[in-house]
Amino acid sequence: MDVTNRIERALTDALNQADMAGCPPRLAVAMRSAVFPRGARVRPRLCHSVALACGEDNPGITEAAGAALELMHCASLIHDDLPCFDGADLRRGRPSVHKAFGEPLAVLAGDAMIVLAFQTIARAEGPADRLLKLTQLIGSAVGVPFGIVAGQAWECESEINLAHYHRSKTGALFVAATAMGAASAGADPEPWRMVGEKIGEAYQVADDLRDAAADVEEIGKPVGQDIAHDRPSAVREMGIDGAIYHLKSLVRGAVEAMPDCTNGNELRSLIMSEATRLVPAKLAATAA
Amino acid sequence: MDVTNRIERALTDALNQADMAGCPPRLAVAMRSAVFPRGARVRPRLCHSVALACGEDNPGITEAAGAALELMHCASLIHDDLPCFDGADLRRGRPSVHKAFGEPLAVLAGDAMIVLAFQTIARAEGPADRLLKLTQLIGSAVGVPFGIVAGQAWECESEINLAHYHRSKTGALFVAATAMGAASAGADPEPWRMVGEKIGEAYQVADDLRDAAADVEEIGKPVGQDIAHDRPSAVREMGIDGAIYHLKSLVRGAVEAMPDCTNGNELRSLIMSEATRLVPAKLAATAA
Repeated sequence: MDVTNRIERALTDALNQADMAGCPPRLAVAMRSAVFPRGARVRPRLCHSVALACGEDNPGITEAAGAALELMHCASLIHDDLPCFDGADLRRGRPSVHKAFGEPLAVLAGDAMIVLAFQTIARAEGPADRLLKLTQLIGSAVGVPFGIVAGQAWECESEINLAHYHRSKTGALFVAATAMGAASAGADPEPWRMVGEKIGEAYQVADDLRDAAADVEEIGKPVGQDIAHDRPSAVREMGIDGAIYHLKSLVRGAVEAMPDCTNGNELRSLIMSEATRLVPAKLAATAA
Repeated sequence: MDVTNRIERALTDALNQADMAGCPPRLAVAMRSAVFPRGARVRPRLCHSVALACGEDNPGITEAAGAALELMHCASLIHDDLPCFDGADLRRGRPSVHKAFGEPLAVLAGDAMIVLAFQTIARAEGPADRLLKLTQLIGSAVGVPFGIVAGQAWECESEINLAHYHRSKTGALFVAATAMGAASAGADPEPWRMVGEKIGEAYQVADDLRDAAADVEEIGKPVGQDIAHDRPSAVREMGIDGAIYHLKSLVRGAVEAMPDCTNGNELRSLIMSEATRLVPAKLAATAA
């Protein structure tokens, strides 16, 4: 079974565990709508690729880790779209969860998915110490002081710490994706952090480029939000060309940071292809 | 060290782990304000008492479990107080988190505390399989289909399943408190579920009584919310006297449901004293 199918099956299994007889039906539908139809699944793909690169020996653990990463990512999107934050009505080209189901269910669906992510890891079959390590890794990536929740909270401070903001808001789940991929395969997660950090930073730059230069049709959500909400952005700091140059050097850095592993080729290709995919089509055409 | 000090120290330690250099300062303050000054700490006290009754052999694990239960409870209060739910301005006699810090930080503080609860268990020192079991137990108690998040979500359905509503919204964390107390001590959590279920139901009845008959000054939050929000309530179903009678029989049932254990006396006293404490003073005076 290829990685895409493994990721979708693991997410389907996780949601089926949540949506059993006795679950409030609208909550279950809201949760599913936040996870399906699928987005790019960037974080679980990265996790799977690192696990394979490290000689994966327990596929079920990688699948649980990948599903947990995606559930956390989707949960953060639901809460970030709430009216008290971005107030975004669109996500992946469809109404955001609070728009479709109301604010109460959007808050609760996010909460339930954070919990489901931990449950998915805890329910996996495999060595308890490995599962506990994964729980610690995803906890750090989501919580405080340096996880995505802390990253979002920097937007509520009068003085923003830019380094912590970027590192937490986008970087933390990428660091977790590489570290958890390694830990899923029983490898040491520590040397993989730098790879995730570079990829996360590249992804943030790509996101800033898409916000500044893509069309709504291309990315399925509102554009121009960084300027509208006066948020820091690589494009605002270094211009379009500077941001593209920076993105490319980050991707090279990620590949160079990879520690020795059983099979790194597939991972190298994934990193390179993601970098291309993320630059908005009209910029890529200009740059080419 | 007595149980009260152990609980407060474990919560302080957990929050210190979150609030390190690099944590957004207002988020950290919002989280602390939701946990301190202390409430009754009913759930961690129950967890500690069951662990002691089962012959606790690793105090650090019980303390982590108790802190995790209280963090989940406080997180649920923050989110339940949000304007899109109860819109409560007061909690424990002080401004609720969204009132003091704004909605965005209230959403994020709740999210961060859910994550911190899992992190607190995962960071405890002890056998990995025991910590993993605790992770599963608290996950079920908070998530879907039967945890407190699901319980809250029943309020968003057009047809409410009353049995699931009560069992989830209040009962689930009490079941977890007894089951996690047993699991913390390495005992089988299953036979303890019924004890937690009865106590949780008694607590819900007591809460309904307090909502119907207590003063704002006595309970530190708005009263009359069940009727105001057209919510199901034991008092609305069976009247004040019927609810008091039902509360007492649930407490007896909880004590009778206790499985054989090393030292059950302290736990029996706690259950009985809690039942007395929870009945609003003016009703207790009338009943006496």
